[in-house]
Amino acid sequence: MASPGQTQPAMLNLARWAQGTTQSALQDMLAIAAQPEILSFALGLPAAELFPNQALSVAAARVLTESSLVLQYQPALKALKAEIVTLMAERGVSCGPEQVFLTVGAQQGMNLLVHLLLEHGGSVLTEELVYTGFQQVLLPFQPRIHTVPTDLKTGIDVAAVERLLASGVRPALIYIVTDGHNPLSVSLSLEKRLWLVELAQQYHVPIIEDDAYGFLHYGENAIPPLRALDPNWVCYVGSFSKILAPALRAGWLVVPEALMAKLSVVKESSDINTTTFAQRTIASYLTSGYLPSHLKRLRAEYKHRRDVMQQALRSYFPAVARWQQPCNGLFLWVELPETVDTTALLQLAIEREQVAFIPGQAFAIDGGAQGRNAMRLNFSNCSLEQIETGIARLGRLIGQL
Amino acid sequence: MASPGQTQPAMLNLARWAQGTTQSALQDMLAIAAQPEILSFALGLPAAELFPNQALSVAAARVLTESSLVLQYQPALKALKAEIVTLMAERGVSCGPEQVFLTVGAQQGMNLLVHLLLEHGGSVLTEELVYTGFQQVLLPFQPRIHTVPTDLKTGIDVAAVERLLASGVRPALIYIVTDGHNPLSVSLSLEKRLWLVELAQQYHVPIIEDDAYGFLHYGENAIPPLRALDPNWVCYVGSFSKILAPALRAGWLVVPEALMAKLSVVKESSDINTTTFAQRTIASYLTSGYLPSHLKRLRAEYKHRRDVMQQALRSYFPAVARWQQPCNGLFLWVELPETVDTTALLQLAIEREQVAFIPGQAFAIDGGAQGRNAMRLNFSNCSLEQIETGIARLGRLIGQL
Repeated sequence: MASPGQTQPAMLNLARWAQGTTQSALQDMLAIAAQPEILSFALGLPAAELFPNQALSVAAARVLTESSLVLQYQPALKALKAEIVTLMAERGVSCGPEQVFLTVGAQQGMNLLVHLLLEHGGSVLTEELVYTGFQQVLLPFQPRIHTVPTDLKTGIDVAAVERLLASGVRPALIYIVTDGHNPLSVSLSLEKRLWLVELAQQYHVPIIEDDAYGFLHYGENAIPPLRALDPNWVCYVGSFSKILAPALRAGWLVVPEALMAKLSVVKESSDINTTTFAQRTIASYLTSGYLPSHLKRLRAEYKHRRDVMQQALRSYFPAVARWQQPCNGLFLWVELPETVDTTALLQLAIEREQVAFIPGQAFAIDGGAQGRNAMRLNFSNCSLEQIETGIARLGRLIGQL
Repeated sequence: MASPGQTQPAMLNLARWAQGTTQSALQDMLAIAAQPEILSFALGLPAAELFPNQALSVAAARVLTESSLVLQYQPALKALKAEIVTLMAERGVSCGPEQVFLTVGAQQGMNLLVHLLLEHGGSVLTEELVYTGFQQVLLPFQPRIHTVPTDLKTGIDVAAVERLLASGVRPALIYIVTDGHNPLSVSLSLEKRLWLVELAQQYHVPIIEDDAYGFLHYGENAIPPLRALDPNWVCYVGSFSKILAPALRAGWLVVPEALMAKLSVVKESSDINTTTFAQRTIASYLTSGYLPSHLKRLRAEYKHRRDVMQQALRSYFPAVARWQQPCNGLFLWVELPETVDTTALLQLAIEREQVAFIPGQAFAIDGGAQGRNAMRLNFSNCSLEQIETGIARLGRLIGQL
């Protein structure tokens, strides 16, 4: 029982992967974007003024007074699974409630799947520029990450995927955002969807399909997700965060039934279970039939903001700036001339123009140089006036480079 | 693009640790205990009829109508951290908001800490019988688990801990439930608390202190948690699940400030952030000053149920049954003669007497034989009549063995 008598407390010894890890760029941006004087296109936030607070408040009050059990630990709510089966049918997906697993959002859904599929030190296949939340999930696994390029008009380079698989690479999983790619904003072409699913079947490689933005489509004909093409190799990740409200913390998976019991183990070890309160509130909202008109309103409003942002880009950005019109999601991916480093530009934009965005390179796998001259601009969380003002300010700054 | 033309879908290839994993006993029990005809002492559920639904409903409605931002992604709520600092002071812990990390409950708090501290294939130190949720968190890490026995009157065998550490064993962490141990119901003696913290300091081994039941104490003098004795090596895990309501999914950590940024990375990769809605609702409830009288009521009611269960055990169980009176938490740990296998007994209890409990062996590390003749009985989630009836039925069954 000797005392060490030290004066300086020693630092806890962390797992190797965590030693060099610091607060993420996303968390830093959340802090900066929360400052009221910053006009932020940085985060993938839905428009708070469009949340159905009133209807959700009524639903929440109803379920809280119905029964005390709504605040108890409870199994996943069957009524919500049934509503999700109906929702999935609208996306062209045929599934049953026995394939629907409830989560606290897309991020947890993807995290749970990676825990089940990826061995420590195993390998995964994804794109060179990819959602940072997926990269964070990989960190503790210290995996080999195989990357392929992405075409900004048609999505992931499936020919490159095939070459990798044909060469003998056998990743534990392929991760892809099929619609409204984060950060590249592209939606995968139908031809590539068919091809990618064939590869998954042929090489027995599961696909994690992150469909956080699939319900936010702005064109006439939404293409069905990969899960509509294959029920065995595609694990579908859905979320209410972008179509209802993030703070409900509710999402779902559609997976082969054989995974359900295994998922319940990883879910329980993560956070026991999802709040029945939020599940009942959402189920009550959905059963009341409010979602279709709410979605219609969201799509019209976000499409309008997207178009206003594109018009502002044409007005204020140099003619060499390049982007594709997104038909899904919350982002525009804008490429500037190769001489521009958007990470340096961000600092200037915050200091001089009080405007924020996310530099493309923040999404590059393993700190690669991809996206160095690009920026991800969110158009869902600003008013039309803010979009006009913010893009004008950014354009002025870029014009001075 | 060849098609495999298979008729039977192949099964996804899971990570090794997950291949043999099936739905946990806890999940099975949750399903059984949810059947209305079963009288269940199995799960660690708080009493739903004591939840402050009315006050929480008022608080929830208020925060939902105050601002749409309550449903948006938001940084962790400072007002709730400040309330938690006050709560911790009641337990004798001095800390600041910069050391408080908000989680969706104790399970997530512990999970995040393990992810930061434990290397894949590393080692941990814990008791022979320990909360299954901790064991589940360890699974993907495939660690070496060092175990020590537990004294049912004074808690973990600290001399055995010291022998292990002195012999050169350097676990990445020690996990312990200090008060109202799950499943053993013991609270660690003050002498052992001082000794254990000294060992952590001397050997530079962090302790994860799971204090899910610390606020539910039934004696005159609650002993402060380990965190009150050391701010550098003890990572404290707290929860609102047992003192307010589980479905709020809210808990917290008190950790060395150097861990906060790292925790935000693992938290973000798990589920982005905790719901601001629940955080604001709880903060509003706490600020209104409702908690002290609510806690007083919970302690009085649970103490009464504990005493009624002990009286029923004395009346209906054979005289050879042994247990200690718990001064914290939700459980009684009852040992039967060594010839009794409580796992077999559970099947009979459900079939013949429609009563459920958790067999002690379910908590043994690595499927060991510890607890084979013991049962964990929950006393918080049954009425006095149900306790009397259920224990009488179990006593009748045991008498027939």
